[in-house]
Amino acid sequence: MAEWSTVRQLADHVGQDVRLRGWLYNKRSSGKIHFLQVRDGTGLVQCVVVKANVAEDTFAASDALTQESSLVVEGTVRQDARAPGGYEIDVRRIEPVHLAHEYPIALKEHGIDFLLDHRHLWIRVPRQRAILRIRAEIERAIQAFLDNNGFTRVDAPILTPASCEDTTELFETRYFDDTAYLTQSGQLYMEAAAMALGKVYCFGPCFRAEKSKTRRHLIEFWMVEPEMAFVEHEENLRVQEALVEHVVHSVIDRCAPELELLGRDIARLERVRAPFARLSYDDAIGWLRHHGFDIAWGDDFGAPHETAVAEQFDTPVFIERYPTKLKAFYMQPDPDRPEVVLCADMLAPEGYGEIIGGSQRIHDYELLKARFEEHRLPEETYGWYLDLRRYGSVPHSGFGLGLERTIAWICGLDHVREATLFPRMLYRMAP
Amino acid sequence: MAEWSTVRQLADHVGQDVRLRGWLYNKRSSGKIHFLQVRDGTGLVQCVVVKANVAEDTFAASDALTQESSLVVEGTVRQDARAPGGYEIDVRRIEPVHLAHEYPIALKEHGIDFLLDHRHLWIRVPRQRAILRIRAEIERAIQAFLDNNGFTRVDAPILTPASCEDTTELFETRYFDDTAYLTQSGQLYMEAAAMALGKVYCFGPCFRAEKSKTRRHLIEFWMVEPEMAFVEHEENLRVQEALVEHVVHSVIDRCAPELELLGRDIARLERVRAPFARLSYDDAIGWLRHHGFDIAWGDDFGAPHETAVAEQFDTPVFIERYPTKLKAFYMQPDPDRPEVVLCADMLAPEGYGEIIGGSQRIHDYELLKARFEEHRLPEETYGWYLDLRRYGSVPHSGFGLGLERTIAWICGLDHVREATLFPRMLYRMAP
Ligand SMILES: [Mg+2]
Ligand SMILES: [Mg+2]
Repeated sequence: MAEWSTVRQLADHVGQDVRLRGWLYNKRSSGKIHFLQVRDGTGLVQCVVVKANVAEDTFAASDALTQESSLVVEGTVRQDARAPGGYEIDVRRIEPVHLAHEYPIALKEHGIDFLLDHRHLWIRVPRQRAILRIRAEIERAIQAFLDNNGFTRVDAPILTPASCEDTTELFETRYFDDTAYLTQSGQLYMEAAAMALGKVYCFGPCFRAEKSKTRRHLIEFWMVEPEMAFVEHEENLRVQEALVEHVVHSVIDRCAPELELLGRDIARLERVRAPFARLSYDDAIGWLRHHGFDIAWGDDFGAPHETAVAEQFDTPVFIERYPTKLKAFYMQPDPDRPEVVLCADMLAPEGYGEIIGGSQRIHDYELLKARFEEHRLPEETYGWYLDLRRYGSVPHSGFGLGLERTIAWICGLDHVREATLFPRMLYRMAP
Repeated sequence: MAEWSTVRQLADHVGQDVRLRGWLYNKRSSGKIHFLQVRDGTGLVQCVVVKANVAEDTFAASDALTQESSLVVEGTVRQDARAPGGYEIDVRRIEPVHLAHEYPIALKEHGIDFLLDHRHLWIRVPRQRAILRIRAEIERAIQAFLDNNGFTRVDAPILTPASCEDTTELFETRYFDDTAYLTQSGQLYMEAAAMALGKVYCFGPCFRAEKSKTRRHLIEFWMVEPEMAFVEHEENLRVQEALVEHVVHSVIDRCAPELELLGRDIARLERVRAPFARLSYDDAIGWLRHHGFDIAWGDDFGAPHETAVAEQFDTPVFIERYPTKLKAFYMQPDPDRPEVVLCADMLAPEGYGEIIGGSQRIHDYELLKARFEEHRLPEETYGWYLDLRRYGSVPHSGFGLGLERTIAWICGLDHVREATLFPRMLYRMAP
């Protein structure tokens, strides 16, 4: 008998004796038999305790087990097509580790505030476990794709002297004699790193002190931000679609039980294959106006616009070449039409909205300096960023993929708050 | 001819024509020949431009290239044992992309303040590139080891209502109507996650507003924090030594050119094999006193103590079972000797000090509640952490590995400031 097995490994031990450790998720009983649903972090298995087949203390222990009690189970693995997961355990011995007090999360519906207040326990239910497993797989797949395609991971600083873009939605902290802000994006730092290492990415937390309470917003979220020297707009989009295709199919391949548990329509995910659909900003505006939306050239898209456009496609869709005035100061103008920039947002299907924003960056010193003046960016803070255009400047491009929105889409969640371990939202920072 | 090659791929293209894009690192010239050292983020290669063999504009362009100018090189790969890296390029064509202004970082010694002020350019030199490559490999190896050993990655929140340990060295920020602190450790959150997922880890930035200016301290640093349900002290140490062994040998296997460039004594790293040396805190105190150190039982170790003890061993060394009073409130007392706890610090060899701190955690509700009272920890903030001992409590253990100290050790750096892209130190937060 192996020292310890996990639920995930049961298929390799049919007919054998195993020992598992875990927690009681649920129990059904008759006078002579207990059906214990035991979770161990890798899955859920039904353990059958038959009075006639076990010692008295084991049957009594099974009887006494409360929801979420921790325990050790010994028994024989049996294949059973009717069992969720396909296997059951015929129990020989139960050893309780700790009898749980009356558990606050019953197996019924709770309000969202109650669940968020008990997030440290809520994560124990199979649905939340499945989401967290998929999150981990998405993170792994993102990094594997980039590492295998010549990127070097570098970590951008979190404490920064000033913001990447707008300074209104920043968290501020004293930094000894100075003031620091929590990063909203590692992009500017990635541009410096790309000039040293060619292709780089950062992957870490970002912060927006935004007073919005939508199902797409978190105050603290993770972002992966690749940046590539010598790469222009067109190649930037090809990297993005290859990355997203890789991530979606890695999850399909490695997290099928979790997707099934979430009730995700896998057929819709299967269709996510490059090349993705593309639409110019101009055409998106035209399409929206034709379909009755009150929007004009120069306006930004809201969630309803993004949803309506994305619904036309099976794959994610790129919206390309937004008006210069709508976008960040560092984006490269289209050489043929300087009123638009060489950027694209990637919208996920099924109403999940923007998951990637990216662009080619300005590499010309004079043009970037003019933008600094227009946007009144202080050279003492941003001079180092201008330096990148003084010393061996090259065309370069990059993008940022929002992790929690990508998870919400792939898992089919109603709200990004389930896509992270302890969500930080407007007025919520606990536990 | 392949579309683009990188310096790292040259070995696969001997005798073939290639195109590279990169930056001029250094140049030697005679009247009839230019030796261009070109870096492209994957390595450094010498490109030989012979006047008699190239068009006039290519020779003139080579002549005009300034340090750190960006360029495209076309030519033939030639194996040459004398060349650093083993290959050279016989150039047919040079196309400058951008002529760099006079570069501030000359190829001579600069003071550390100058270099840190120019960190965005300093990272371009081969030594810094090598360190950042090794950092990325260490991160990859850590995650691969944990992912392949049944751990699920979960990301701990950065904004927290209060600190894990001491509250004196925290960065504070307004969080809407509330006050948030930047995390010093994700451990408490990992304990909650371990009860849901079994074996978990977080990997992200941590912050200590510590007014210390040593070569081992950064204000912002990365930490990996694994946490394991049903795992006790002894197994905790076995996981730690297996992880560190794996990481060191992954770097030896995959970053040999970078270690060589850094002048690292690889033989010393080769000896890092589990099991690691172990010493009780008691014996470490005894050894130190015997060797003339003025230290008594109950005192904590300083850097000189750690260095002296670690120098006795080829592998990292665990110091086990510290006095309860020296350590954090959540550590499990040794059942045979409650005045010490089931903890260990792992000290790196060669004077690099502590790279891991870990322990078994208290799993008994009453004992932990007593500790809360002793340490005056508010139950409204930490009640959720107590809950983990009310509902299916199990023995569990974990540890935190400091990334930058591990990098400093493996690379053989004098100071952790070189171990991260943009170091945050006392009074330094720019660029
Ligand atoms: Mg947008
Ligand atoms: Mg210590």
